[in-house]
Amino acid sequence: MKRVVIVGVGFGGLRAAMALAGKGMEVVLLDRQNYHLFQPLLYQVATASLEQESIAYPIRAMVRRWEGVNFRLAEVCGVDLENRRLSIPGDFIEYDYLVLAAGSITNFFGMESVERNAYDLKKLDHAVDLRNQVLGSFERAARESDPARRRALLTFVIVGGGPTGVEFAGALAELDRFVLTKDYPELQAIAPRVILVEAMDRLLAAFPAELQEYTLEKLKRMGVEVMLNTRVSGAEPERVFLHDGTVIPAHTLFWSAGVRVAPLADSIPVPKKSAGRIPVEPDLSLAGHPEVFVVGDLAYLEQDGKPLPMVASVAMQEGDYAGKAILARYLDKQFPPFRFHDKGSMATIGRSAAVATAYGKNYSGFLAWLVWLGLHLYYLIGFRNRLLVLLNWSYYYILYERQIRLITREGEGGSCE
Amino acid sequence: MKRVVIVGVGFGGLRAAMALAGKGMEVVLLDRQNYHLFQPLLYQVATASLEQESIAYPIRAMVRRWEGVNFRLAEVCGVDLENRRLSIPGDFIEYDYLVLAAGSITNFFGMESVERNAYDLKKLDHAVDLRNQVLGSFERAARESDPARRRALLTFVIVGGGPTGVEFAGALAELDRFVLTKDYPELQAIAPRVILVEAMDRLLAAFPAELQEYTLEKLKRMGVEVMLNTRVSGAEPERVFLHDGTVIPAHTLFWSAGVRVAPLADSIPVPKKSAGRIPVEPDLSLAGHPEVFVVGDLAYLEQDGKPLPMVASVAMQEGDYAGKAILARYLDKQFPPFRFHDKGSMATIGRSAAVATAYGKNYSGFLAWLVWLGLHLYYLIGFRNRLLVLLNWSYYYILYERQIRLITREGEGGSCE
Repeated sequence: MKRVVIVGVGFGGLRAAMALAGKGMEVVLLDRQNYHLFQPLLYQVATASLEQESIAYPIRAMVRRWEGVNFRLAEVCGVDLENRRLSIPGDFIEYDYLVLAAGSITNFFGMESVERNAYDLKKLDHAVDLRNQVLGSFERAARESDPARRRALLTFVIVGGGPTGVEFAGALAELDRFVLTKDYPELQAIAPRVILVEAMDRLLAAFPAELQEYTLEKLKRMGVEVMLNTRVSGAEPERVFLHDGTVIPAHTLFWSAGVRVAPLADSIPVPKKSAGRIPVEPDLSLAGHPEVFVVGDLAYLEQDGKPLPMVASVAMQEGDYAGKAILARYLDKQFPPFRFHDKGSMATIGRSAAVATAYGKNYSGFLAWLVWLGLHLYYLIGFRNRLLVLLNWSYYYILYERQIRLITREGEGGSCE
Repeated sequence: MKRVVIVGVGFGGLRAAMALAGKGMEVVLLDRQNYHLFQPLLYQVATASLEQESIAYPIRAMVRRWEGVNFRLAEVCGVDLENRRLSIPGDFIEYDYLVLAAGSITNFFGMESVERNAYDLKKLDHAVDLRNQVLGSFERAARESDPARRRALLTFVIVGGGPTGVEFAGALAELDRFVLTKDYPELQAIAPRVILVEAMDRLLAAFPAELQEYTLEKLKRMGVEVMLNTRVSGAEPERVFLHDGTVIPAHTLFWSAGVRVAPLADSIPVPKKSAGRIPVEPDLSLAGHPEVFVVGDLAYLEQDGKPLPMVASVAMQEGDYAGKAILARYLDKQFPPFRFHDKGSMATIGRSAAVATAYGKNYSGFLAWLVWLGLHLYYLIGFRNRLLVLLNWSYYYILYERQIRLITREGEGGSCE
């Protein structure tokens, strides 16, 4: 039996596995985590809206229903294209076909002081760390007597005006306003600051101008300070430095201004494109290696003269395609080149407010928000997770209450030494 | 306004605060965590049944509805009885009345090798650590080629035949049998071992003999190996040593064979009772300090010639009493001495199986199990948490599925170095 190895169980790897399940091939899924993570909702874990468990789904719970598919919890250390095998700690895994779907990590563009001091949102524990930091800052502010330090503790700088930055900024502003100001009577006199920093002259660069303006207006009305045409140049634990020399006293810096491919890409010896992406053939295979497919954020492919973006919808379609293309190749059938069908994109800003493009039309406000909710529930895996998320959202929508404001970091109460 | 300071927001501290809320006194709650933890369900977090968030409730969410009550996230370093103040990191808090409700920690009875290698269940992160360990052991076993090591990875030794040990053993045996054996087709040939070690000649020592026997029989039928009259003498990462010289190769050791009071008790200069408990007057106050009350696991009080046990129901009644006694003292009223009303105790063993005593009668099986479910839901704080737990339990009961089998510990996929 021919063996397909799939590296990474994100949106791309998962769709590839689904396309290949029960088709007479051996499929081995590899990931360093034992769960599929629904990354688009990480910011809601970070803002105390969702339990971390509700956006993660154990891979073996899926795989046990898929004929011929196995999972192995393993870091992948390298790819040996010549011998068609992967190295994992203490072992090798041979493949007949390979799907690389290892995704991306945060790109700090070499700014070490930012990397050291900033929070980001790519993994489940990042979201929990960020939640601990936000809630912990309020606790520290509550017992701080120095007004300047108190102000810095309650200043949250978010860098990057893409969907993640916008969604986190909106959710954080609402957490502050609807929940935490009620929790901390001792902080009534101080309004927490949420500052959104974007290098370009607009938010949500990939969206139509109309929706960019809506987003900017909405965030401002929610109390978010938006700084356009602004770059961060460095950071310290209690300060953020801007390119123009401005210093913002802030204990929390969140970075969502860029991604780059997972380090595994280094073991593919081809010249990379921007963000380290691996150029692929029109059928997503690696040049000279028709048995190797690269999908999702890892893959660089142009369509109509523009590179496909590093987003979930591209990864899903590419993963599905790669699975089907492998089957076709295995059965010696022809298969047309990959083509991404853009159904649109969306971002939520706050309660009853989102922006969306779908099939060339623009939507904003309540309708876009409802569609956002529906689609996220739809793509979330598992009935239980959907129910849990729906419950949490309803709970928050009706009661303005976010229950998961737990600080799980040790030592927040100080040390007696 | 007179100030009451309550140390610890467990079952005892919480009830004291509830009794004092809105009564014209200033109440300050102190805890090192920002949430009330429902400890009796920790073992269900450890066995992938419940989200950690569903058994924790943010204290400020309660306190903001309670007039005159404030919360401060702080470690308490010491009590200065003479000057009526507590030291916390970098500060002091003065009190007119004090309620000490700091609870207990695990007692390893000085066995350092056990303390180093064993898991216990007193805090939220303990439960997550234990879940990671159980699930991680299955993953490591799945990729282990040496049969002896594989067997040791799938051997779980539980020490202590009290409610926590029994409940964890039962839940773990069911997790293995109903969930994990389906998740790991590569481990079909090996039955995981759950070993329950108890020093006495019976389980659940505080229960009537009839229920002890029921529990023993039920656990055995569920595949748990119960070793009575057996003591653990030491441990290594992959081995557990028994007093009689037996060595059990096992990578997971869980310790629930004893508790002792929180270290804060050291700052109360009185001779302690067993487990380090602080002897109190019939009204739960400290001899010579009528303004200081000690409740819950911390307090030692005999009733009808026997010490009250270190259990949640005692802590709740004592906390409530202390709150009311402080009010009475403040209003210069007489107040009768504390008396514990034993409504019974219970432990669950598995699906549809529990034991309970209530008002002198014994119950076992399905009925006891239903009562167990109902009472735990009732005592759990917050509508949302109750709903979540009920959903999870229903889900498991109907589908034999425990969804939260996520390994959140880093590095489980091995290291490439």
